[in-house]
This record gives sequence, C-alpha cells and structure tokens, in this order.
Amino acid sequence: MCNKCNDLIRTIHSENHHFGWDNSIEPVHRIKPGTTLEFQCLDSSGGQLNKHSNLSDLTDLDFSLINPVTGPIYVDGAKPGDLLKVTVHEFKASGFGWTANIPGFGLLSDQFKEPVLNIWDYDANKPTTSAFGKFANVPLKPFAGTMGVAPSELGLHSVVPPRRVGGNLDIRDLSAGTTLYLPIEVEGALFSVGDTHAAQGDGEVCGTAIESPMDVVLEFDVVNNKSITSPFFTTPGPVTRHLDGKGYQVTTGIGADMLEGARNALMQMVDLLSHQHNMPPEQAYMLCSVCGDLRISEIVDAPNWVVSFYFPNIVFE
Amino acid sequence: MCNKCNDLIRTIHSENHHFGWDNSIEPVHRIKPGTTLEFQCLDSSGGQLNKHSNLSDLTDLDFSLINPVTGPIYVDGAKPGDLLKVTVHEFKASGFGWTANIPGFGLLSDQFKEPVLNIWDYDANKPTTSAFGKFANVPLKPFAGTMGVAPSELGLHSVVPPRRVGGNLDIRDLSAGTTLYLPIEVEGALFSVGDTHAAQGDGEVCGTAIESPMDVVLEFDVVNNKSITSPFFTTPGPVTRHLDGKGYQVTTGIGADMLEGARNALMQMVDLLSHQHNMPPEQAYMLCSVCGDLRISEIVDAPNWVVSFYFPNIVFE
Repeated sequence: MCNKCNDLIRTIHSENHHFGWDNSIEPVHRIKPGTTLEFQCLDSSGGQLNKHSNLSDLTDLDFSLINPVTGPIYVDGAKPGDLLKVTVHEFKASGFGWTANIPGFGLLSDQFKEPVLNIWDYDANKPTTSAFGKFANVPLKPFAGTMGVAPSELGLHSVVPPRRVGGNLDIRDLSAGTTLYLPIEVEGALFSVGDTHAAQGDGEVCGTAIESPMDVVLEFDVVNNKSITSPFFTTPGPVTRHLDGKGYQVTTGIGADMLEGARNALMQMVDLLSHQHNMPPEQAYMLCSVCGDLRISEIVDAPNWVVSFYFPNIVFE
Repeated sequence: MCNKCNDLIRTIHSENHHFGWDNSIEPVHRIKPGTTLEFQCLDSSGGQLNKHSNLSDLTDLDFSLINPVTGPIYVDGAKPGDLLKVTVHEFKASGFGWTANIPGFGLLSDQFKEPVLNIWDYDANKPTTSAFGKFANVPLKPFAGTMGVAPSELGLHSVVPPRRVGGNLDIRDLSAGTTLYLPIEVEGALFSVGDTHAAQGDGEVCGTAIESPMDVVLEFDVVNNKSITSPFFTTPGPVTRHLDGKGYQVTTGIGADMLEGARNALMQMVDLLSHQHNMPPEQAYMLCSVCGDLRISEIVDAPNWVVSFYFPNIVFE
C-alpha cells in the first residue's frame, strides 16, 4: 500500500535482482509511465552479512554477490534520448546496518589494510539516529546508493562505477522527496535499484556507508530535456539539517590534485577524531564515511585547489 | 570599538597592504597573543573597481595590483610548528561588490573568453541579500577569501594559490563566528588578510565571488596541535542555512578526473539555468560562482568519482 494515496502498489521482490548492468537482462516487470512501484532491496552484501555477523563473515564475503540491484523494470515508451524521471517517495528501513573497512577498497585503502566491521542497530519505524559503538550517535537519512538504467553498450558492465546512466552514484541526498532524472540509452530504460544506505557522508570515504536492506517506493515517468546529459536531481528542501545543528570542524587538503587533497583532508580528520575521542583510527575512518562531507572549496586559484572535509559536531552531543 | 566588549580596537589601515607572500616584508604592527585587531581590507582589485565601474575598467585592470592583503602582523611568541588561532569576530561590509568573468581565469575559462562585469549593491548595515540584475536575489554571507601567514621559503610568492600556511583559501564558510588555525612557519607568524567577499559558493567557479571591500575584526592566539598540518577551522553552527531553505537542483559530473567532473557538472548547470531563466550563459556562470556549491558525492567507486553541483532554489524566490 502507498502511505500517501492508499493505492495498492506492486512489489518487486528481492529475488528479482541481478549483478552488474547488461541490457540483455530480461525485464522482471513492465509498467506505464506514472506507475509507482515498491522495490525490496537487499543490502550491498547481497544478504551475506546480518546483525549477527562477525569479522570472519566479512573476510569470507563472496564478491561476485556484491551490490545486487532489484529489477530491471521496462517503462513503456521510454526511448534513448529521453530521461527517466524517478520520484523517490519512501524508504522502509530494516533496523539493521553494517559499515566495513574492506581491504583494497576506500580512499585510504593504502593505510587501512585490515578488515573492520561495525554492526548498526536502529529503530526501523523511526530511523533518526544510530549509535556508533560508545563513540557517537549518527543521524540517519536513508537513500538508495544505486539507481540506474541499462547502458547501450552490449555485455555485462560492473555495478561498481557510476556512469552517465546513473548506477552506483552513492549521492547521500537521493533521499525521500527528491526527484532523479537519468539519461535513457535503451528502449524501455531498464531501471534497477539497490545498495540502500541508512546514512552516508559526501564521499563515502571508507568505501561503505550504513549498508542496510530496505524497501523503496519509487514513481516513474518519462520526460525530455536536452540540457541534462548526466544524472540530475532536485530536492524539495534542505539536505544537511540532520547534521548541521552544532556546526563542524573542517580540515583541508591543498594542492594541484584533488584526489590527493581529499586524502590529505581526510587523513587529518581521522587523526583529529582519534585524538579528541580516544577512538581507534579505523573507527574514526568509518565514522567519517557515514557522516562527514567532502567539498571543493575552491577550484580556480591555480595551481592549488582546496578540498575540505566537514565533520559534524552533532554526532558527539 | 569592539561591538562585543566595547574595548578600543587598533585598526590596521588599508594603506598597510602588500602583494604576495614574502617573509622579509616588515611587520606593520606587533601584538601579544589574545589581541583583537580591525583590518581595513581593499577588494581584490585593490580599489581599481568601484560601484561606477564599467567593462573598460575591467579590461584595463592592472594585475600587479590584484589581491592586496592588509598586514603583516607579528604575533609575539609565535614560532614555527605552532598554529596561529584566528577567531573571526565581525565583517563590516561596504555595500558595494563586483563579480567578473576575467578572461583566462575560472573553471570554464576555455568557454567564457569575453570579459563580463556585474556590480552589486547591498545594505552595508544589514547585508542579507543582493539583487543579481533582474535574475535573482543572492543571500549574503561575508567572509575573507585570503587569510594567511608567511611561508618559510625565501622570496616573493604569488598570492593566488593557497598553501599549507593558508592564503587565498576562498573557503566560503570562514565567516563571522568561525575559528581558523594556520600552521606557522616563521617567527611571529606574519599574518595578513584580504580578498573579502560578500558571498561565494563552494568552488568559486567563475574565479570571482562578490568581491567587496570590508573591515574585518579578528582575534589572535598561538596554540599547538600536531594533528593539524594544513588550515583547519571550526564553525559554531550550520553553514548553509542562508541558501538551503527551498532545496536545490543538482547536476553531476561522473568520471575518473574530478576536475573534469566538476567542469561537466557546472556546464550542465549553466545550460539549465540559462534555459530555465532566459539568462545569458555568462550570467548563469557568474551566478553559479556566488551561490552554487561543488561537492564530492563519492570518491570510492573506482574508476569513476561523482562531483555534484548544488544550485539553491532560494535565489529565484
């Protein structure tokens, strides 16, 4: 049922998932524009991790099962050159989540080489905050890390990198109330969704967010706008007020390379938080990933750009 | 006079300015830690532009006079390895500002090759918003684009690029209430300030903000924290509420190069605003510079990073 209009909404069950993008995958359902669907989304481990998981479950992960997406959905009339308009109505949270440092993955993977796992527990009916061990309380803002349509190129394409057609965008503001527009490259669009997160900061710096299975209610339309050639979205209001109430501390990385700048800003924040809160550095790194934001402060004062890492004080209140 | 404590505050007049960083420049004043000073800051044109200026004044700019900074101030006891703590108390605005597309400067300088100048007028006593022609009303948040201390390397160093010791950081959140910490490299620190802005977005994408002469009240202390090796600051509260009330539209740039990603996101926003508001593209570009924000949405889904450009709807209300 839709909480807004009480219409019966078709559910696309999580068994209907696939790995990677491939425009030859058969649609699991076909809809007219204007249709709302509910998607059951597995977490990004594909159900391999649960609230009882430990470090050995993390190290045993089968990476061929990572980041399943539910779909694809064929939208009648959608054709290459159009945009798929996806109105994000609702997230039905599960109350369970995980964040991990996965060796080889993340912005500081050269420094954090050991696997680390944190299990989160939160109120599924009222997902406002979740405790990060004894260290912090993280405000939640559920969203789907992966929403995309099939690329025109034949064959199977990894789900990991985002693309012109969307996919693993990991944009923390694609929460309830936003509207996302995705460039369509094949007939029917072939939309899928997954990788639901209970919270994440801009950057997703350790490589994982609060990874959390959820049901997602989305409405679909087809529109045309030639100005939009890459995923585009609108938000109905502020995007940061769950985090900003108590201000920030902010580190900077300054130099000609923004990736290096981002790393430098993050490394300093990890050091700072470790000292201030007597927190192991790998825990500070994961905490940065779920609530800290990377911003480009200036990108014109050649040859040095400034990347800033904003960490919200509210998590320690 | 200090508006807070009514103490008489020493003013460092704008005649006491210099161009570029050089640790051999004689200090214009010497203070003890704990001292508050008021600095008269010229705008970044060094007074070459004023509210009556036109395009020929812009094209006639003498670039050797660009970005003067008021100072330097010698702080007793400050030594290499310490941090200069700068508490930002107040900006006394002038009511005049300018934004320009200066050929050869800015993130899209290859596309916007003609000089363009916009003169802003706002209430100096209550700098809340300023009209951008007939197109928009931009919320103001005054700050100093350039705050820095002298680098240890001998000789004269350009003021344009920011450095480990600060300088032309152009971080839009260094507004009243923030505290900035700068790594000290020479005895006395040798602090200077300038490049005051009435408003700017993250990125300062066209290369200029609302450039505006202002008086700035700052307090100085010397502290030590080995975790901080690059400019660091704290904010007492939210940093985006002057802009976020009506939400955003957001474009994305996706790929392996973040500079290219930022350019792609910005180009799409310029196109969109031009179409939506019947605005010449060069005006949309300048508007993006004074109120739009570049964020790094994800930096871990190799090989493609997502840079997003957030444009606030409130400016069109």
